[in-house]
Amino acid sequence: MSGFVLDPRLAADTLPVAELAQCSLRLMDDDRFMWAVLVPRIPGATELHSLAPDLRRAIDDEVAMVAARLAQWPGTLKINTGALGNIVRQLHIHVVARHEGDAAWPGPVWGSGSRQPLSPVQQAERVDFLQFD
Amino acid sequence: MSGFVLDPRLAADTLPVAELAQCSLRLMDDDRFMWAVLVPRIPGATELHSLAPDLRRAIDDEVAMVAARLAQWPGTLKINTGALGNIVRQLHIHVVARHEGDAAWPGPVWGSGSRQPLSPVQQAERVDFLQFD
Repeated sequence: MSGFVLDPRLAADTLPVAELAQCSLRLMDDDRFMWAVLVPRIPGATELHSLAPDLRRAIDDEVAMVAARLAQWPGTLKINTGALGNIVRQLHIHVVARHEGDAAWPGPVWGSGSRQPLSPVQQAERVDFLQFD
Repeated sequence: MSGFVLDPRLAADTLPVAELAQCSLRLMDDDRFMWAVLVPRIPGATELHSLAPDLRRAIDDEVAMVAARLAQWPGTLKINTGALGNIVRQLHIHVVARHEGDAAWPGPVWGSGSRQPLSPVQQAERVDFLQFD
């Protein structure tokens, strides 16, 4: 969709992974968590429930697809998904692979500690893991 | 669906609101936040992405319906939705009406401070607000 520009704060914290049909799939640049962010390419969107139902369902399908993949990340015990937007208002959906004893367990990842950037090798491994045919 | 029993921790923290087609709709008994919880009546379910796609979409539709209603709660600035399940594994989806300066703003509600039970008048007002025809 023309007119979509990724929020600069999301751009700064994440790495590009893939362009899905509805969303830009991004990887949080944080070695503490295997953490994907889906950003629907819809200018001005802030709330999933405000979208046309078919569009919202297509986004929900992409979230589920990414969640199913992240559930296969080694050691994953539980998937956490969230759409908050209290700080960055541009609509974005978090999908995070969690395990007991991770840096925020059992609390939420949002607002927990400081991001620890990935090494280039980790970046490549994680981006590769999140590719879809 | 037979065999479904609400997790006792969810039962203890929430009040019954309504039975939707897929989910038990509950209200968090917390005057700090207008906070709904949807619990799909599916025995053993823990992850949305593991459900059959049509069932998952029906649940996503109910989440969006509740979110749209909560967005009308006076003073609401942003809806937060989340499915975590790190502590209570039974599948449940949170939908929370947020505003600047609320007790956790701009952080997540999960793990933030202590629940402040609603008065009977508040309970009735909020349960009534969350009724659907």
